Amino acid sequence: MIVIMKTTASEKAIDEVVSRIVHLGLDTNIIKGAERTIIGVIGTSFKAELAEMLVSVAEVESVIPVTKKYKLASREFNPLSIVMDLANGVKIGGPEVLIIAGPGAVENEAQLLDTARLIQQAGGRVLKGDAFRPRSSPYAFRGPGEEALKQLAKAREMFGLPFLTEVGSADEIEVTARYADIIQIGAHNMQNFNLLEEVGRAMKPVMLQRGTSATVEEWLLSAEYILNVGNKQVILCEGGIRSFDPSTRAVLDLTVIPLVKKLSHLPIVVNPGQASGKAFLVPPMALAAVAAGADGLLIEVHSQSNLSSEGPESLDLLQFEQLIAQLKAVSQVRERAI
Amino acid sequence: MIVIMKTTASEKAIDEVVSRIVHLGLDTNIIKGAERTIIGVIGTSFKAELAEMLVSVAEVESVIPVTKKYKLASREFNPLSIVMDLANGVKIGGPEVLIIAGPGAVENEAQLLDTARLIQQAGGRVLKGDAFRPRSSPYAFRGPGEEALKQLAKAREMFGLPFLTEVGSADEIEVTARYADIIQIGAHNMQNFNLLEEVGRAMKPVMLQRGTSATVEEWLLSAEYILNVGNKQVILCEGGIRSFDPSTRAVLDLTVIPLVKKLSHLPIVVNPGQASGKAFLVPPMALAAVAAGADGLLIEVHSQSNLSSEGPESLDLLQFEQLIAQLKAVSQVRERAI
Amino acid sequence: MIVIMKTTASEKAIDEVVSRIVHLGLDTNIIKGAERTIIGVIGTSFKAELAEMLVSVAEVESVIPVTKKYKLASREFNPLSIVMDLANGVKIGGPEVLIIAGPGAVENEAQLLDTARLIQQAGGRVLKGDAFRPRSSPYAFRGPGEEALKQLAKAREMFGLPFLTEVGSADEIEVTARYADIIQIGAHNMQNFNLLEEVGRAMKPVMLQRGTSATVEEWLLSAEYILNVGNKQVILCEGGIRSFDPSTRAVLDLTVIPLVKKLSHLPIVVNPGQASGKAFLVPPMALAAVAAGADGLLIEVHSQSNLSSEGPESLDLLQFEQLIAQLKAVSQVRERAI
Amino acid sequence: MIVIMKTTASEKAIDEVVSRIVHLGLDTNIIKGAERTIIGVIGTSFKAELAEMLVSVAEVESVIPVTKKYKLASREFNPLSIVMDLANGVKIGGPEVLIIAGPGAVENEAQLLDTARLIQQAGGRVLKGDAFRPRSSPYAFRGPGEEALKQLAKAREMFGLPFLTEVGSADEIEVTARYADIIQIGAHNMQNFNLLEEVGRAMKPVMLQRGTSATVEEWLLSAEYILNVGNKQVILCEGGIRSFDPSTRAVLDLTVIPLVKKLSHLPIVVNPGQASGKAFLVPPMALAAVAAGADGLLIEVHSQSNLSSEGPESLDLLQFEQLIAQLKAVSQVRERAI
Repeated sequence: MIVIMKTTASEKAIDEVVSRIVHLGLDTNIIKGAERTIIGVIGTSFKAELAEMLVSVAEVESVIPVTKKYKLASREFNPLSIVMDLANGVKIGGPEVLIIAGPGAVENEAQLLDTARLIQQAGGRVLKGDAFRPRSSPYAFRGPGEEALKQLAKAREMFGLPFLTEVGSADEIEVTARYADIIQIGAHNMQNFNLLEEVGRAMKPVMLQRGTSATVEEWLLSAEYILNVGNKQVILCEGGIRSFDPSTRAVLDLTVIPLVKKLSHLPIVVNPGQASGKAFLVPPMALAAVAAGADGLLIEVHSQSNLSSEGPESLDLLQFEQLIAQLKAVSQVRERAI
Repeated sequence: MIVIMKTTASEKAIDEVVSRIVHLGLDTNIIKGAERTIIGVIGTSFKAELAEMLVSVAEVESVIPVTKKYKLASREFNPLSIVMDLANGVKIGGPEVLIIAGPGAVENEAQLLDTARLIQQAGGRVLKGDAFRPRSSPYAFRGPGEEALKQLAKAREMFGLPFLTEVGSADEIEVTARYADIIQIGAHNMQNFNLLEEVGRAMKPVMLQRGTSATVEEWLLSAEYILNVGNKQVILCEGGIRSFDPSTRAVLDLTVIPLVKKLSHLPIVVNPGQASGKAFLVPPMALAAVAAGADGLLIEVHSQSNLSSEGPESLDLLQFEQLIAQLKAVSQVRERAI
Repeated sequence: MIVIMKTTASEKAIDEVVSRIVHLGLDTNIIKGAERTIIGVIGTSFKAELAEMLVSVAEVESVIPVTKKYKLASREFNPLSIVMDLANGVKIGGPEVLIIAGPGAVENEAQLLDTARLIQQAGGRVLKGDAFRPRSSPYAFRGPGEEALKQLAKAREMFGLPFLTEVGSADEIEVTARYADIIQIGAHNMQNFNLLEEVGRAMKPVMLQRGTSATVEEWLLSAEYILNVGNKQVILCEGGIRSFDPSTRAVLDLTVIPLVKKLSHLPIVVNPGQASGKAFLVPPMALAAVAAGADGLLIEVHSQSNLSSEGPESLDLLQFEQLIAQLKAVSQVRERAI
Repeated sequence: MIVIMKTTASEKAIDEVVSRIVHLGLDTNIIKGAERTIIGVIGTSFKAELAEMLVSVAEVESVIPVTKKYKLASREFNPLSIVMDLANGVKIGGPEVLIIAGPGAVENEAQLLDTARLIQQAGGRVLKGDAFRPRSSPYAFRGPGEEALKQLAKAREMFGLPFLTEVGSADEIEVTARYADIIQIGAHNMQNFNLLEEVGRAMKPVMLQRGTSATVEEWLLSAEYILNVGNKQVILCEGGIRSFDPSTRAVLDLTVIPLVKKLSHLPIVVNPGQASGKAFLVPPMALAAVAAGADGLLIEVHSQSNLSSEGPESLDLLQFEQLIAQLKAVSQVRERAI
């Protein structure tokens, strides 16, 4: 941590800051510049409150942290990228780019099984389906509940696809963990810290979506919450951030793929449809994500002409198959496979 | 709801859209323009899914909602501003501008009682103190727990100040509701929908902070979650939104004060220190908030020279007293009092 | 400037960074921490390129500037707030809060003179009117040109109101400077650096609007362009920044008022209607701006029922008069007058 | 255009709105809903001011435009993507993905020629070099001027590379157009409307960078300014938009590639280094841009160990060659070549 004093700071003020730091068992190293004094704080222990305290001193200009706030989520702590075993031999983080796909909503068993079969034939490896749906309006449909989990489990049994499903509150975790292979935390809940710890304790792989206005640091700190309860299986998922431009629902921030890979050992998946909200934007952005080094994709597909509960970003089966073919070629450029 | 067809839309496509709408028991009114056709949807029932379904039709350009998504939180539904009785005769939403103040953290009983006494003498009407503190890092201190609630209750007994305190997860509600007068939902949890419903059921006044990237519509929809379980006592609180400028922690969006008053009957409070993160910015922004019509302010104050756990936005007692004097004068311009 | 080396940086890399700095005639001071080394750069000369060069070194984690990038615009350089004489005894930056008002567009002489008379009677001190209007679409009306400048000059002669008018390109400066008292640079042109220098050379007071996505630092750097050609009369104007929320045209960032006053000696004016785009939001935000310490306001008013070219944020005369009365009371709280 | 009346609007107010519209020679079509009335405006002529006027009517809730604001830049007006001949047989918009590359600054002839030779050998087709550099600080180096243009012309002669160079003000256009093949308008100047028209009149291909907080609509409106003076050769360039996350300089918004291709016939180039500000992020984002369908890339490279004026996003020659090899493979997936 570095403390930058104001140009007007007195010797007395500088001494006082130094003594506060030393009082906490840390060392200092002082740089007296032509215009101002800078105090380096030396010590390995993590002191979140010290920075806040020093900023409140009148003659301190600013306090700059040097150490990262997260540890278990950092590549410094885990030099090797983690390869996670999901279920049925399906892995993420290794040479294979993982295709996760599913309908927008689980409506009935027949339709789900039909979609699952077609996804599996086209090259999808994980099925996505939601029993619980946190929604921004209390009047929107919040999901079919446990019945959907049973149907997803049946689809897994029939087609060998492990499944991913979202939880929105702590009381949904126990029943979900009994069925699901991967539990998703949605963007709204990225900083629902209690939920992060509770879902971590279920000891299932967790897919943690980036909040729509979360910095990369906040995202990794939320991953740290899950890792910190002893669950090492965290998958990050980028689905778009807020911007001033109403052209799309959100801005897909693909730069986080190489950035997160530099900062962390955790795998990263991209959900292009969630950001764009339009089906014609999904294939190019899916290709871009894999070209940028994503470990997986989450794609919404529909098997039928009945669109009543499908999002406008949903691909039809033919579009999905064509996309998979192109994704295979792009993944080879990155020395990976699908 | 208005459906705007593409310029290239065929008659067949237009007919299909109309028949989908009629199928749901709604009426349509068609405008054939020089370039494109527009379909007005007529009906009072709320159909969230219809819009999504129509957007997914290839020949639809866009779908524009006309009706607001929230109802119980709207002024159309409640023409009169609500005046809420908090406790001990303290009200919000009426002619008095409510001053809520407290230390950044509840450290020990002596210090809390000392601060409460000075706040009460200076003109504060509600005490703010946190037993539970949702934090973005798992390594930060998460609050002292029930012990702090007992101390806050003791301060209430001694100085007549009802108290406001934050909860971060559903399992903290029951114990909090036993002691507190107003329960705060922090910005991180504004879209923690399960928490909103659970806290609503405690039937205590709820102060709902705006998420740092929430639109006004999303904020009012979150209020709707609380109102929808039968709790009418929702107070909105603006504490800043995210921007591209690192000059301050967040941008205090004071325009939401007159905007929310137009859209809703609910009272609105401003927390200037949370956005600015610097004590010297708090008094001018507090004055501005009251000038813009805020129903209350939430201000952090400290009673002592020991700043170890105070935020850099904390006022000292003298600054707080001077601010109150100025606030009284500004509130008179708005025909209110403090 | 502080250079933070990576935790993995070798001694050789550290030596190389030091020798690059020393090579430019600057001194260093090295802090060897438990985890990493930090190099303080000592010297008063301004080296913009050094930071960029050092960031590109592989073993450098980050480079943190300590000195501000602007100088002439800084309060460190000019401890006293500037009071500017505009014309006809009208000043800005002193005890009086300056009210600038005018119609949205200059349509014809009779209407302009009528509006000017009413503005002057209501308490306005500067007239705003545009001869040139930079517009985001090539198909929008770009202003009446010199004819409007003559009409504004006539209004000045008749009612004693100095006038403010916008220029959008260098070739409009000469004619504008012949008539106008204050020249406005709009938000679109805040980083049109050539225009800033050219307008500065006209040696008239310049009102520099903040770009809708400009940081405070960038804004003051743009002011520095004008100051750097020898023109000391720069007035800053906040008119809103971009956000994710479509509720209003832009977010009025009032916190910049006390922030800019801390960083700079230049006066600051607020244009509440430009940000909100709605007349009912103008009075509360104008009051808030003065409560926060603004040196002036820019308000659009219309004198007639014919609204054909007025913006939706335009006040009518009665609203304007009522606002002035309230502004007088609020300005007294800040020990100022209108 | 659609006018949505408030739920409380009287018959008289509705009639008045209708009569204003009819007064301008336009037709209306009225939808009386259960809750409110909606008025459709029918007519092909472009009436920018009508919307603003109607919004200001007290009983109007909102006005929604249906027609796009730009015309010459739209695919509706130009169904076929344009293929532009730049010089020396180099084209953009056709099957070849164009690689534009150059040093961060033109320092001296020997170094420029050396870099140009290596770029050409590696597969670059256009040389980028700046004689004029608009900078956010008046103290930064603003470019070497005409001398650099001569050196760039010499490099073109020797290696057959047409060159791209930026102008920052109207008085730089004439000299620049005498030498350059493509003129760049930087992000700061995207809404410098006078410069757009002036550069358009030089009748050279113009590369228009997106402003860092410009919506796609504003970007295409700025292109419209150039097209509207008769210059059909506009190339769009995405280099990042502002966000709340300090992890990178800007967020590269690759979704605009397929979005702009849907809305417009103009080619689009991506500058990944400008957004990321870090060399290690450039190759993955360059690959992603081509996977998403970009027509070209703008990449900064340096030929030497002397980094004194290179940006931290600059690739070395080896990195550039490796990137080109990967780009070739990705471009094939999109049925294109490099």
